[in-house]
Amino acid sequence: MTVTGFQAAFTSSAPHGILLALFIVLLAAKLAAEICERLKQPAVVGEVIAGIIIGPSVLNLIQPNDVLEALAELGVIFLLFTVGLETRPSDIFKVGRRATVVAVLGVVVPFIAGFGLLSLWPGHSRIEAVFLGAAMVATSVGITSRVLSGLGLISSEASRVILAAAVIDDVIGLLVLAVATSIAGGRLNYFHLGLIAALAIGFTVLVIIFGSRVENRVKEPVKNLRFEHALLMFALVLCFGLAAVASVIGIAGIVGAFLAGVALSEATEGTSLHVQSQALTEFTTPFFLAMIGMKLHIGLFLSGEVILLSGAVIVLAILTKLIACALGAATMGRRRAIQVGVGMIPRGEVGIVVAQIGLGMSVIGDSVYGVVLAMSIVTTLVAPPFIKLVFANEKRSAEARADSGTV
Amino acid sequence: MTVTGFQAAFTSSAPHGILLALFIVLLAAKLAAEICERLKQPAVVGEVIAGIIIGPSVLNLIQPNDVLEALAELGVIFLLFTVGLETRPSDIFKVGRRATVVAVLGVVVPFIAGFGLLSLWPGHSRIEAVFLGAAMVATSVGITSRVLSGLGLISSEASRVILAAAVIDDVIGLLVLAVATSIAGGRLNYFHLGLIAALAIGFTVLVIIFGSRVENRVKEPVKNLRFEHALLMFALVLCFGLAAVASVIGIAGIVGAFLAGVALSEATEGTSLHVQSQALTEFTTPFFLAMIGMKLHIGLFLSGEVILLSGAVIVLAILTKLIACALGAATMGRRRAIQVGVGMIPRGEVGIVVAQIGLGMSVIGDSVYGVVLAMSIVTTLVAPPFIKLVFANEKRSAEARADSGTV
Repeated sequence: MTVTGFQAAFTSSAPHGILLALFIVLLAAKLAAEICERLKQPAVVGEVIAGIIIGPSVLNLIQPNDVLEALAELGVIFLLFTVGLETRPSDIFKVGRRATVVAVLGVVVPFIAGFGLLSLWPGHSRIEAVFLGAAMVATSVGITSRVLSGLGLISSEASRVILAAAVIDDVIGLLVLAVATSIAGGRLNYFHLGLIAALAIGFTVLVIIFGSRVENRVKEPVKNLRFEHALLMFALVLCFGLAAVASVIGIAGIVGAFLAGVALSEATEGTSLHVQSQALTEFTTPFFLAMIGMKLHIGLFLSGEVILLSGAVIVLAILTKLIACALGAATMGRRRAIQVGVGMIPRGEVGIVVAQIGLGMSVIGDSVYGVVLAMSIVTTLVAPPFIKLVFANEKRSAEARADSGTV
Repeated sequence: MTVTGFQAAFTSSAPHGILLALFIVLLAAKLAAEICERLKQPAVVGEVIAGIIIGPSVLNLIQPNDVLEALAELGVIFLLFTVGLETRPSDIFKVGRRATVVAVLGVVVPFIAGFGLLSLWPGHSRIEAVFLGAAMVATSVGITSRVLSGLGLISSEASRVILAAAVIDDVIGLLVLAVATSIAGGRLNYFHLGLIAALAIGFTVLVIIFGSRVENRVKEPVKNLRFEHALLMFALVLCFGLAAVASVIGIAGIVGAFLAGVALSEATEGTSLHVQSQALTEFTTPFFLAMIGMKLHIGLFLSGEVILLSGAVIVLAILTKLIACALGAATMGRRRAIQVGVGMIPRGEVGIVVAQIGLGMSVIGDSVYGVVLAMSIVTTLVAPPFIKLVFANEKRSAEARADSGTV
């Protein structure tokens, strides 16, 4: 008998609240996923909408709390770890240069667009413009990789470029945010910026090189471990270890989780680790997706100015990322370049975090906060159908290969 | 990029604290498990000791918090769900009567012993004696089933009796706690007691009967679901749904999770659900085990009286459960009766919860609280080696069967 049973019966209602909340989130997310699949829409869209519906904006069945936040974070950690498991280090080396070009263009153009728009729009400070630009920078690799996994296309060439570019623009996005907060704090700390940049780049390169070298050196020691499911537990310890290191040195935890997956990808082929990490991903990802929807406060959008500005920012966010990243991938041919551009559109939770930091520092107002929320959620919701559309050919040929038994 | 990265770099250290905490708990638990396996001790013992070492009592690296509590709860939920998946409804019917006898004796005798001891011991109130008795009642089915799974013996006859009896004594234990809190609150609410009893028994019987009837009726509808991993998600929704219902009507959430597993056991044989739910269990169980250790406050044991009383309570807790449950299973033959008695010894987290409620109602003092903590942790730590010992023959023959390829 756990805390829940005894306490629920006799003290507060909080403990069985956790089980009930998990049940409601999972049920709502999967019902919505099923409806979307039947309407030929990506399940991701349904799960975010499920979050909007059960969250404070509509039914108010569930309020975001520490436990749901932690499960949402585990969701994106496991998602990127699983994606990493399907990404060989050599694949990243192959696309590294192109992905860097895509990432840099995909950071610079949206930043300038967001900064420019709010600088020209009446009634907003320069620092608000900087924060809006920063919020438009980083792609939500979680959303895109979830959609691509769902289509069975995570290992196509365009997918690899998207994933690598999204990881790189996470690192650049962090530096942009560092500049924005330095300016908001009244001074630019170049030493701190340089340190983060050096650590971020060094860490990424080291793990990838290390990962591609040790491969089989990992297998034997793990086999000698005596506790059950040693490979899974070794992988989880590595995943959270690198995520914690990444987070401590100032990069996103998910970058560490992704790199842990990449480092293990070749050594663990053919083991049950892939099925196991997928189970962890399936359980936790609904919390990540639903949480994005739950954070939307519809009340912010009763003002005409917020609606107008949101519309302009959303259009800019979609077009700048699409065009800049497609240009960056132009040498791949027109169809793949468009795939890359579309895959980079969703901002997901990243923009929301930037806005929360700005709000916390009292340098952005409620209206810009609302605009960033709308931009993050709308780019998350519109991208998946387009991703499905531009990858339609690849999906058909992947299915054909599967049917003819060659996969 | 998630909340962790951005916030960690610029605001508080709390967000990357979560990743770091998960990493430390997993690493410490698995290192300790490895050491225990090499010393031929059960891994469970290592993981609880790891919790003591990294917790506030020794190194103070990790403090219990909402997120770790939730993961610990998920750990025992998934553990019981997975155990349920390996338990057919017909198996429970087969052992139901014997398990009821074992459970009732295993509740009555330890309660009388605990109540009697503290009534005779100088300086304690009658109500403290009632709470100590209540804390000695309920077996931690989580610990025992973890050890038996580790030995590959979860489906032996004695294991089935232990699991069924532990589920039944959870329900009875709840009623005992209800009586204790009613007395502490100044009155016995017979209506409330009757309601919980009726709901608990009705729910358990209904799910088991329903589960044994629907089996294959579940398979077809689930196959028609279109989102990915539909069977896993259906199973998780059922698991948390029944856990939430159990918790809301006043039984432990894990009883619902166990029954959900039982209901799905026959319909899901041969699917990947078993591997998937095991992955979820492996990830979360270390938090359940380490949390038990982390709750120990060594400072409470600087008093001679507490040490003496703890010793007496621990000896009584072990002997009464062992003897009463073995007597209840006497018709199974001496060896199996002893297996059942030993399997019922660990109290784990249950006693701790009872003590916390008593402390919260200000009806028990710090010394009795410390005594209950010691009893829970020591019974958890001493039982696994004994379980391993008394099941040694079964383990050998299970291994022999596995080697000769008949399993």
